Amino acid sequence: MAQKTTNEILAIAKKARLAAAFLTTLSSETKNNVLRAMSESLLSHAETILEANKKDIASAKKEGLSKAFIERMTLTDKRIQEMADSLLAVINLPDPVGEVMKAWRRPNGLWIHKVRTPIGVIAIIYESRPNVTSDCAALCFKSGNAVILRGGSETLASNCAIYTILKGVLNQFHIPDGAISLVATKDRKAVDQLLQLQEYIDLVMPRGGEGLIKHVVEHSRIPVIKHYKGICHVYVDESADVKMAQEICFNAKVQRPGVCNAMECMLVHYAVAPRFLPTMIKKFKKAGVEIRGCPITRKIVKNVRRATEQDYRTEYLDLILSVKVVKNMDEAIQHINTYGSHHSDTIVSEQYQNSLDFLKRVDSACVYVNASTRFTDGNQFGLGAEIGISTDKLHARGPMALEELTTYKYMIFGNGQVRT
Amino acid sequence: MAQKTTNEILAIAKKARLAAAFLTTLSSETKNNVLRAMSESLLSHAETILEANKKDIASAKKEGLSKAFIERMTLTDKRIQEMADSLLAVINLPDPVGEVMKAWRRPNGLWIHKVRTPIGVIAIIYESRPNVTSDCAALCFKSGNAVILRGGSETLASNCAIYTILKGVLNQFHIPDGAISLVATKDRKAVDQLLQLQEYIDLVMPRGGEGLIKHVVEHSRIPVIKHYKGICHVYVDESADVKMAQEICFNAKVQRPGVCNAMECMLVHYAVAPRFLPTMIKKFKKAGVEIRGCPITRKIVKNVRRATEQDYRTEYLDLILSVKVVKNMDEAIQHINTYGSHHSDTIVSEQYQNSLDFLKRVDSACVYVNASTRFTDGNQFGLGAEIGISTDKLHARGPMALEELTTYKYMIFGNGQVRT
Repeated sequence: MAQKTTNEILAIAKKARLAAAFLTTLSSETKNNVLRAMSESLLSHAETILEANKKDIASAKKEGLSKAFIERMTLTDKRIQEMADSLLAVINLPDPVGEVMKAWRRPNGLWIHKVRTPIGVIAIIYESRPNVTSDCAALCFKSGNAVILRGGSETLASNCAIYTILKGVLNQFHIPDGAISLVATKDRKAVDQLLQLQEYIDLVMPRGGEGLIKHVVEHSRIPVIKHYKGICHVYVDESADVKMAQEICFNAKVQRPGVCNAMECMLVHYAVAPRFLPTMIKKFKKAGVEIRGCPITRKIVKNVRRATEQDYRTEYLDLILSVKVVKNMDEAIQHINTYGSHHSDTIVSEQYQNSLDFLKRVDSACVYVNASTRFTDGNQFGLGAEIGISTDKLHARGPMALEELTTYKYMIFGNGQVRT
Repeated sequence: MAQKTTNEILAIAKKARLAAAFLTTLSSETKNNVLRAMSESLLSHAETILEANKKDIASAKKEGLSKAFIERMTLTDKRIQEMADSLLAVINLPDPVGEVMKAWRRPNGLWIHKVRTPIGVIAIIYESRPNVTSDCAALCFKSGNAVILRGGSETLASNCAIYTILKGVLNQFHIPDGAISLVATKDRKAVDQLLQLQEYIDLVMPRGGEGLIKHVVEHSRIPVIKHYKGICHVYVDESADVKMAQEICFNAKVQRPGVCNAMECMLVHYAVAPRFLPTMIKKFKKAGVEIRGCPITRKIVKNVRRATEQDYRTEYLDLILSVKVVKNMDEAIQHINTYGSHHSDTIVSEQYQNSLDFLKRVDSACVYVNASTRFTDGNQFGLGAEIGISTDKLHARGPMALEELTTYKYMIFGNGQVRT
């Protein structure tokens, strides 16, 4: 497709705003029927999607992109099946729109309802994973929001193919196109243009690397919810059950190291370190984990590379772990609140007061006692599919599922009340 | 006081961040004791405040500021008593921090609690009303947030006097100074500096004119909740009880025209206009309200000035009202969603379906059937004192009381769970 001009971006935003007004009137049943039809249509057009994806892959190879990158952007029949299944899963989630969050009566007879409503128009800027296109479209559609999608340029052909299919279903149900839009250009200026359109767009969600997110925060006039990096910690308290601590730390690091809720730094109370670290690090090394330790760690266990200040600020997303021995829980909490990303952090402890204090004082979206950080996930929480994990504090914190894609309004029923 | 340099602003923000961590540990009882002591201290230092205020007023007069402006910034014994009373009122509001919003158990035994927490550090930028200094300080303190206050430069001496008294009480209770900070400079660059400090400040709330708010939105890297203008409407439906409509419209416009929840534009169904408008406009004129009408209004009632496009976008905050006759409710809703500020809008109607459709389709924080827009107010809603009325959709919409000054975290209790 041709590159979009400023006018084309503006037209997309205006159409989205109009569609948003329409979407508030759709019943849950209609929305579910649309999602089912989208799921079926993705499957019946799998060939078209795969062909487009092949073009993207060919370009990516020509540009010499990494194997891991190409792996993430590659679609297969199985992955398209998963995309279709995800759409069906959203059907089963309860529709949050219209929920009466609270209702009460005032002494003057006013009857106040706080009611969940869609946010309006949401722009999502993401990297080159084509499944995100259909996942985000489905979650926004079910929660009554119009969505403007802007995926990584490397998968533009795949995204266009998926989008064309979704749009076909919208047309079939006589739903305005603007309900789901794709900014179909490789021009990065399109993002900057979007970020200025606060009159038409209510929320921007960047999902991706630090550079992308910083860029969006610096340039946006629209409220942003960041799905930032996950620098997650496990703190092994003096009183920890050492075996439990080893299982939790191993799971948090090794079970799936490439995701945001994996542990990047392990903090260990000095009194338990001699009993805990040698076996733990041996186990990690056997699993291929590279350890970067503080001076005390390196005294306890030989052949450990030294951790730098920068290590503590790094989201490895890989089989690498920094390890630091601390003198007490205060130091651990201080470290987490300073170097962490306010995502997910765990204490392993058998001590009552420490556990409660840790929960209270660690300033993160999800704080655990005696469990792996890997549970920070909409489905694991029982909230259903999520659009991401917010590391922000405003509006939504932690897993952002359907409910977090809504706002509210007050509906007030009177019978002639005036203020005196 | 001397002008602050960049380093001084940074130091304020850092101190606030440290204090925020401390504030999460305070009990409700301690917070209430502090608020009570602040209230008493304001009263016992009333003379100091009044003296400082006199200096501000003298400068304002020298600079030729308007009478209304000077009236708003003037403190009296009575106003200081009201400020002290406001602090006491905050004591009686329930402390939102620590509230378990939801808690549930997962099949794997994880016990998840969604718990209200303070947001952290809040910066409030406001205009020249010295009472806002103590009001905002009290609401942020009670909700466990550190606050950085930046009031209008015309009341700098008054704000400094009030701040010094509040700070004295913090010291007396051994609470870090950073819990309440004042940016004590007339230099407008201080605001721009604050807006860059996203590492230390979690939320910015501008309260004031359009220029101030636009400036903050354009320059802030910190999330902003806008307390924007109130262009509120009453739509008189075809089926309206004409007497009720007249009472509601009169109240919405005249009872207190200078506030954001006053009506600025009255929309009238054409079928009811001939019965409704002549008496209504006569009543308005008698109360000194200037009417600016659409062509049909001007046909029905003589000697009405013509409303321009700009009128429909104007928050008069004065005894001026634009009036437009519409052909149906659709046109009314369209007008409100286009020209309004998403604040408060009313339908007066005896028709069931219209009333419900209006509630659903008007995209405003507070939508009323058969009641005055003037009820949009934390106290009127029964929520207690408010920090403002949010016209945004994210995080908080409508009256922002204590609850809206909080966020949440997930606290998860496990007993060794790992993810498989």
